[in-house]
Amino acid sequence: MDTQPDTALRPDPIDEPARRASERSQALDPKSPVARFSADTPLLTDAGIELAPFQIAYQTAGTLNAARSNAVLICHALTGDQYFAHTHPVTGKPGWWETLVGPGKPIDTDRYFVVCSNVIGSCMGSTGPASIDPATGRPYGLNFPLVTIRDMVRAQLMLLEHLGIHDLFLCIGGSMGGMQVLQWAALYPERVFAAMPIATGPRHSAQNIAFHEVGRQAIMADPAWADGRYLEAGTRPAKGLGVARMGAHITYLSEPALHRKFGRRFQGGSAPTFSFNADFQIESYLRHQGLSFVERFDANAYLYLTRAMDYFDLAEDHGGVLANAFRGTKTRFCVISFTSDWLFPTRDSRAIVHALNAAAAPVAFVEVESDKGHDAFLLDEPAMFSAARGFIDAAARARGL
Amino acid sequence: MDTQPDTALRPDPIDEPARRASERSQALDPKSPVARFSADTPLLTDAGIELAPFQIAYQTAGTLNAARSNAVLICHALTGDQYFAHTHPVTGKPGWWETLVGPGKPIDTDRYFVVCSNVIGSCMGSTGPASIDPATGRPYGLNFPLVTIRDMVRAQLMLLEHLGIHDLFLCIGGSMGGMQVLQWAALYPERVFAAMPIATGPRHSAQNIAFHEVGRQAIMADPAWADGRYLEAGTRPAKGLGVARMGAHITYLSEPALHRKFGRRFQGGSAPTFSFNADFQIESYLRHQGLSFVERFDANAYLYLTRAMDYFDLAEDHGGVLANAFRGTKTRFCVISFTSDWLFPTRDSRAIVHALNAAAAPVAFVEVESDKGHDAFLLDEPAMFSAARGFIDAAARARGL
Repeated sequence: MDTQPDTALRPDPIDEPARRASERSQALDPKSPVARFSADTPLLTDAGIELAPFQIAYQTAGTLNAARSNAVLICHALTGDQYFAHTHPVTGKPGWWETLVGPGKPIDTDRYFVVCSNVIGSCMGSTGPASIDPATGRPYGLNFPLVTIRDMVRAQLMLLEHLGIHDLFLCIGGSMGGMQVLQWAALYPERVFAAMPIATGPRHSAQNIAFHEVGRQAIMADPAWADGRYLEAGTRPAKGLGVARMGAHITYLSEPALHRKFGRRFQGGSAPTFSFNADFQIESYLRHQGLSFVERFDANAYLYLTRAMDYFDLAEDHGGVLANAFRGTKTRFCVISFTSDWLFPTRDSRAIVHALNAAAAPVAFVEVESDKGHDAFLLDEPAMFSAARGFIDAAARARGL
Repeated sequence: MDTQPDTALRPDPIDEPARRASERSQALDPKSPVARFSADTPLLTDAGIELAPFQIAYQTAGTLNAARSNAVLICHALTGDQYFAHTHPVTGKPGWWETLVGPGKPIDTDRYFVVCSNVIGSCMGSTGPASIDPATGRPYGLNFPLVTIRDMVRAQLMLLEHLGIHDLFLCIGGSMGGMQVLQWAALYPERVFAAMPIATGPRHSAQNIAFHEVGRQAIMADPAWADGRYLEAGTRPAKGLGVARMGAHITYLSEPALHRKFGRRFQGGSAPTFSFNADFQIESYLRHQGLSFVERFDANAYLYLTRAMDYFDLAEDHGGVLANAFRGTKTRFCVISFTSDWLFPTRDSRAIVHALNAAAAPVAFVEVESDKGHDAFLLDEPAMFSAARGFIDAAARARGL
């Protein structure tokens, strides 16, 4: 295992379509350090498959202290990645959580060593369906094993051990990242000093599964998807993935935010064109969201990660009783929800809090008043920042940091 | 104008693709009476196009009284049709509003003459994008003019005059049907004695436009859509239309209803299959909704009718003041909303009620407690039935029926 790019481990492409596919697969590779795990250290997935070899791409900020007690793990959301505080190599945009993380910020990189890794199954350098299957020399496609939130956490643990980190001062994340936080606290309570699940829930709701299924069907309906073999076919299921993103994007916002931002305003005029052009600003905005997403994300990875979220049901893994997931824990929790989040509404966070109460775990709960919907956790939300700062500072004092 | 099927008016198909297209176009034609309007009586649309000739398919129940004072117009929703109390010719299902309409029902066919016509732009016998353009002998496709809610109402008025009906005892409908009810009351107040807009709003919200746009993009992304020329191409954009329907269907329900009906239950077992099969019952249900919809609906008609809803903004048509749409009206209103309807939430109905109050119009407002979401207006909702019965009976007494 090393952290330098190393293409020598990849098998030689066996033919021209495979070479093209490999190039396309590489194209999404980030400029991140990578931890490689060989056939001797497979990832045993919930599906019962041993994934090996595999690699995890990550980014860090700050410095690990001598006691190795100041590590923070940030868990990213469905379409997020490890570029939490670093310019994104594809979009050129600032890190997605620079509002929260940095010198003097609530997650203070002058005090903490912050790690964020691309989840297993994604497409920004960690092994996923766009990676080359060593058994065939071609991209995995749908031969990649289904992964779960628990598999993501297991892979993160392997990365941390690779980095010489035994336990976390703080584990934090929103949405799918929050699911990972809960899974970390349930699976490795002794390794998590403080946990902050944001805008998330203990399981994916029927409605959320339904929205994900529509997105997956949109991708699979695109002939360019080619049964998942588009990298070899030299095609791009951009239309299907774009439609999936457009639909999902609506669920990340809120009706009041859409109304405030776009209302019924027309593009470049005050009258309808009586056509199917993007007459309304909201249409133009959504189309742009779809188009820009397909530039940075792999369609199969989208299938896999939505599936991982759908399967997440922490209570089900603990005899149907969510509190059982946290019995005896010493982890301290801060749970955050947003009033206008209808994808993971406050009642989901309350279910987490009630379970933590039942398990006698220390927990703070903040419902942030916001009209920005689910994506509020990624935005400038002063009430979230001050809750995070208060909780993290208190935890740091308790940890002697 | 006559009410018997008459294919002689259609131009001869000019070639083989046109003939095939014409057959497919006919295939969706219902077994309904049809009112035909010739080149002398065009429909002047909001887009500024004179549509002629055109036809309106309709169904009736009950008997028009001698005074012609007992006519009820039912306005159907986006994917509805004229089969409100008649077995559907494609699906074989009972009429979509048989719960509300029939002998002894709130809309009592022993007392009232009930009419429901397929809206202009749809695909169940009224002229729409799947109809043959007399100028070319081929289906209109996207050469069909964009129609608005107001155009639908104008065409309904022409139908009613054709049937010898000058004014309506009652105009009633849900969702897009409710938009037509509001438009009727605004456009022809002296012709509407009582109006019942249900689960609707005075304009389409940014979020609703967004959902529609995703559906349209899903259809247009399907190569089988063939730029709208699929009837001639002999293809069917079934996948795109299916995805559009799946996404829309989620918005017609509610999270509590989905949770109660499906929860996270697995198909035929208690464990995930770790695949992209329809593992969850909700996935299987949605796929079925998509598949069955494409059997009975035309993809281009879906584009046109969603667009008509998006354009609807009654206040905008009246100087930005909704109350201006109803000034001086003598129509009596009953507005109904459902607590779990998030597509047309109660606040939309309240906006209608406030405007009617400002216009000094007589209005009753009932918010029905229901967890069934937007589609509650189509379902067995006793509180809606009793509100409708009370309002309609009182109106009948006032009308001397």
